[in-house]
Amino acid sequence: MPELARLSINQVTVLPQWTLRQAVEGLARHGVTAMSVWRDRLHETTLADAKLCIEDHGLEVSGLCFAGLISSPDPQAAGAALADVRRAIDEAAALGARCLVLLSGGLEGGEKDLVRVRGRALDRLSTLTDHARGCGVTIALEPLHPMSCATRSVLATLKLANDWCDALGAEDVFAIALDTYVCWWDPDLETQIKRAGSRIAAFHVSDWLTDTKDLRLDRGMIGDGVIDIPAIRRMVEAVGYQGRIEVEVLSTNWWKRDPDEVVSIIKERFATAV
Amino acid sequence: MPELARLSINQVTVLPQWTLRQAVEGLARHGVTAMSVWRDRLHETTLADAKLCIEDHGLEVSGLCFAGLISSPDPQAAGAALADVRRAIDEAAALGARCLVLLSGGLEGGEKDLVRVRGRALDRLSTLTDHARGCGVTIALEPLHPMSCATRSVLATLKLANDWCDALGAEDVFAIALDTYVCWWDPDLETQIKRAGSRIAAFHVSDWLTDTKDLRLDRGMIGDGVIDIPAIRRMVEAVGYQGRIEVEVLSTNWWKRDPDEVVSIIKERFATAV
Repeated sequence: MPELARLSINQVTVLPQWTLRQAVEGLARHGVTAMSVWRDRLHETTLADAKLCIEDHGLEVSGLCFAGLISSPDPQAAGAALADVRRAIDEAAALGARCLVLLSGGLEGGEKDLVRVRGRALDRLSTLTDHARGCGVTIALEPLHPMSCATRSVLATLKLANDWCDALGAEDVFAIALDTYVCWWDPDLETQIKRAGSRIAAFHVSDWLTDTKDLRLDRGMIGDGVIDIPAIRRMVEAVGYQGRIEVEVLSTNWWKRDPDEVVSIIKERFATAV
Repeated sequence: MPELARLSINQVTVLPQWTLRQAVEGLARHGVTAMSVWRDRLHETTLADAKLCIEDHGLEVSGLCFAGLISSPDPQAAGAALADVRRAIDEAAALGARCLVLLSGGLEGGEKDLVRVRGRALDRLSTLTDHARGCGVTIALEPLHPMSCATRSVLATLKLANDWCDALGAEDVFAIALDTYVCWWDPDLETQIKRAGSRIAAFHVSDWLTDTKDLRLDRGMIGDGVIDIPAIRRMVEAVGYQGRIEVEVLSTNWWKRDPDEVVSIIKERFATAV
């Protein structure tokens, strides 16, 4: 089982309960030493204030979540999305984030040709290389669960994320964010984790509930579901990953809870379910 | 676009509205010449009556749905599940069904080791070979969407279905049921359809709704969603499939509609969305 020192908590887990400042203070109060910052909350304050607050509390920023959704067939929408990713790269650089988590985007405007949309998203990713490299920011491509293919991520498997990293040919910039929730079902998981190797820049954990009721906001707390999280952690560590283990629970149920209680439960579970 | 003569309708599409007899009569009335029979409704009558009714109306049985759920860690439950599959094989033989659709089952009893559960399901499948062969019944393994991995099918990809068919080594018995809804997101789809080739014993079509609200019972009517169904049909036909194209819409919304209207809409859409 991993040391508590490796725990990071993604801000989305307590997104409605806490502002960024409250989250930073709350996590620090509980002895949590890293977090991923959610950009919606970041934009409620200034980047300078956010940076100062996070540094003052000694928190490491394991990731900035998220940017992307660059798959639109509309050039204007795509241009705006890419401009937003560049802003997010700047933010990630300013915060010293370990990576910027990127979601490819889904199908928009009635488009159905997945091969074309995937090709377009990949082409657009390549245009971000120089800016990210100049800022020293790692872009972590996060495949999402296939049930999010239409809405959020045509990047639906770890294999495809590896294919994209191969095609991008910029290993200093593009990496992969691996999330247990989105990939646990994949028969190729171990093979593709081995292939990813040092590309794994972030490791997110949450659980799959057998009676899942929502395709996006019903993730389970670690230990409450069916995912063999320790087995996946061992696979990731076997290829050299020693970074943070980030608990990211998007759940309207957990959003209703007292955030201090949520953090306490995460700390307890981290010792038994990861 | 396919000839209407290739249309089959899966009984589940109008499951609560019509008994088996009503479904047979209803489909025949609309000039539909094939159906898949749902076992829940089949068991409300006798096999002999069902057979007679279907034959009297000149319907082809493109499949019997479904049997399986053979993944349980409990030997007694597994024994009962396998006995039920054998009964389903007998039923499929009696009805002259083109195939028996088999779902592997998900994770049960708190089990989390997917590799082990998949291995166990595969072992149990192999015990069905002789009985199915003796009855002349094709067992069509149906991978389900990865979101059903916990509950219904550890067989989550077409690639794994191909792997299982390879391992089973009984091409005269084990085949694959391919469903657009469960596989459309898969970056390896075309590769694995080519690999499947003549293993494809059934081709099911329904659509993925962008605002899907339920993990099992919110499938979209063909044409209402984002799946490029004609593209997948062409892939399947390119490897030689010339069988029925079976519309299978599990949807509580469509279950509320007048079944005659549902069948009429399917016939219209078949000409434009498949």
